[in-house]
Amino acid sequence: MTETADAVSELLDRLLPTSEGPDVRVCDAMRYAALNGGKRFRPFLVMTSAALFDVPPARALRVAAAVELMHCYSLVHDDLPAMDDDALRRGLPTCHVKYDEATAILAGDALQSLAFEILAMAETHPTSRVRAELVRALAQAVGAGGMVGGQMLDLLAENIPMDIGAITRLQRMKTGALIAFSCESGAILGEARATERHALHAYAHDLGLAFQIQDDLLDVEGDSEMTGKAVQKDEQAGKATFVSILGVKRAREQAKILADQAVAHLDLFGEKAELLARAAHFVVTRRH
Amino acid sequence: MTETADAVSELLDRLLPTSEGPDVRVCDAMRYAALNGGKRFRPFLVMTSAALFDVPPARALRVAAAVELMHCYSLVHDDLPAMDDDALRRGLPTCHVKYDEATAILAGDALQSLAFEILAMAETHPTSRVRAELVRALAQAVGAGGMVGGQMLDLLAENIPMDIGAITRLQRMKTGALIAFSCESGAILGEARATERHALHAYAHDLGLAFQIQDDLLDVEGDSEMTGKAVQKDEQAGKATFVSILGVKRAREQAKILADQAVAHLDLFGEKAELLARAAHFVVTRRH
Repeated sequence: MTETADAVSELLDRLLPTSEGPDVRVCDAMRYAALNGGKRFRPFLVMTSAALFDVPPARALRVAAAVELMHCYSLVHDDLPAMDDDALRRGLPTCHVKYDEATAILAGDALQSLAFEILAMAETHPTSRVRAELVRALAQAVGAGGMVGGQMLDLLAENIPMDIGAITRLQRMKTGALIAFSCESGAILGEARATERHALHAYAHDLGLAFQIQDDLLDVEGDSEMTGKAVQKDEQAGKATFVSILGVKRAREQAKILADQAVAHLDLFGEKAELLARAAHFVVTRRH
Repeated sequence: MTETADAVSELLDRLLPTSEGPDVRVCDAMRYAALNGGKRFRPFLVMTSAALFDVPPARALRVAAAVELMHCYSLVHDDLPAMDDDALRRGLPTCHVKYDEATAILAGDALQSLAFEILAMAETHPTSRVRAELVRALAQAVGAGGMVGGQMLDLLAENIPMDIGAITRLQRMKTGALIAFSCESGAILGEARATERHALHAYAHDLGLAFQIQDDLLDVEGDSEMTGKAVQKDEQAGKATFVSILGVKRAREQAKILADQAVAHLDLFGEKAELLARAAHFVVTRRH
C-alpha cells in the first residue's frame, strides 16, 4: 500500500495543473487537497484489482489517480461549513480553512473534472471503449445515485430516524459506490468477463460496508492523533451510525463477518486474489 | 433557438435522476437548477454546429443536454454565498435559497457528473473514440484551465487591478471555454477535419467575448425584469468589466467587431453556416 501511495502521489503531482496567472490559487488548493499523504486506499484497490487481469501498472495507476482525485474532491466539499463543517483533515487544516470557502468549492469542482479528463485521455488505455466505460461507470458511482446521493442522506440523517437498512443504503451510496468502482475498474481495464466484474463488485460492496463500520468504530474508540481528524463527532451530532445502532461489540463482529464475506467472493480468482483478501482483513483491523 | 430549448428541456427531464428515498432532495434541486427555462444558448450552438456535419440531431441533443447541465452546475455554484452570493437567477430564487447551501453544492456536483455520464454512454455516439474525445474536451473546458479557473480569476478580480488583457483572459476561461466546447462538439460528433474544428473554435472564441461584453452592457443598461437577475452588481462590487474599462460606447463597438470577426471564421462552411452567423449577431443585440 505504501508503494501504491508513493506512485500515485508522484503521478498526481505530474497531472495536477498549475498556472502562471492569479488563478494559480485554485491549482494550489487542488494540490493541497490531493497531495496530503492520505492512505490511498482506493488507488490500492484499483492497482490490486487490475493486477488480477495483468493490466500494465502504468495504465492502472492513471485510473488510481483519477479515483483518488474524486475521493479528494468529495472530502473538500464534505468538509465545507455548509456540510460537515470540519476544520481538521489528516491532521492538517481543511482546504477551506487553509484557503477560503470559494476556493475550496472551486478546487473540488476542478478535481472532479480532472478525474474524468484523465480517464478519457488516450494514455489511459489504447481502447477507447474501455476509456468511455471507465468514465461512464465512475460518473454513475459519484453522482446522485451514488456518492453525492449518499452525502445528501448523511446530511439528512441528523434529523430523521435511521434504522440499519437506511444506514446501509446511505453508506453503500456514500462510500461504497466509489470503492466498488475502484475494484471494478480493474476488470474494465482488463476487459474481463462479466462474472469476474460482478465478483469484484460483490467483494467491494462487502468491503465498503466493513470499511465504514470500522470508521464508525474508530470515531468512538480512536483518538484524533491517530486518525488525524476530530473524533466522536457522530455522537455529538446525534447521528445514527452502525455503532450507535448495533453497539460496539456487535458492530465489530459485523465488520469481521463482512470482511469474510468479501473474501468469499474472490474464490474464482484463486491465489491471485491473495492481496485483495488481505486488504479485507486490513480494513477491519486498521487503527486509522 | 426556442425549438432547441424545448427539445433539450424535454431530454433533460428524462435524463435527470429521481429517487424513492430522502436523497430525492438532491434530485429535486438538480431539476430545479436545470429545468428553469434558460435561453439554452449553448445547446443551440451544439445543435447548429453539429448540423454543419449532418450529425443526427438526436445525438447532438444529448451533447447539448450535457453542456447545459455543466452550465447549470456552474451557475448553482457561482451563486453560492461564498462566491457571488446571488439570491435571484432567471427571476427565481437561486438553488441555495430555494433549498440550502449544502444541497446546492451537492446538486452542482451531481450535475457535473451527470454531464460526463451522458457523454460517455453508448447512446450518444456509436464510436467510442468520439465519446472519449467529447469527455476529454469538455473536462478540459470546465477545469482549472477553463471555467473553474475563470471563476477563480473573477472572484479575485474585485481585489486586484485588471486591464483589458487580464479581463479577456478571465472571460476566455470563465465563459469562453464552454462556449468553445459547444461549437467544437459539433465537429467532434461529425468527425470533421482539424481545419473545420479549428474554424469553429476561432468562431466560438470571438463569439464568447462578444457574448460577455454584451452581458456587461446589460448589467449596466438592462433592468432586472428583462434579465431576470440583479443588475449593476459589477459596479457596486467595484469589479472591472469590459464596460468599466472601455466605456459603454467603445464596448458596444468592440462587441460588434468581435461578432463580425466570429462570422468571418465561418467562411469555409459557406451558406451552411448561416444560422451560426445569425447567432453571432443575436449575441450582440440581445436584451436579456
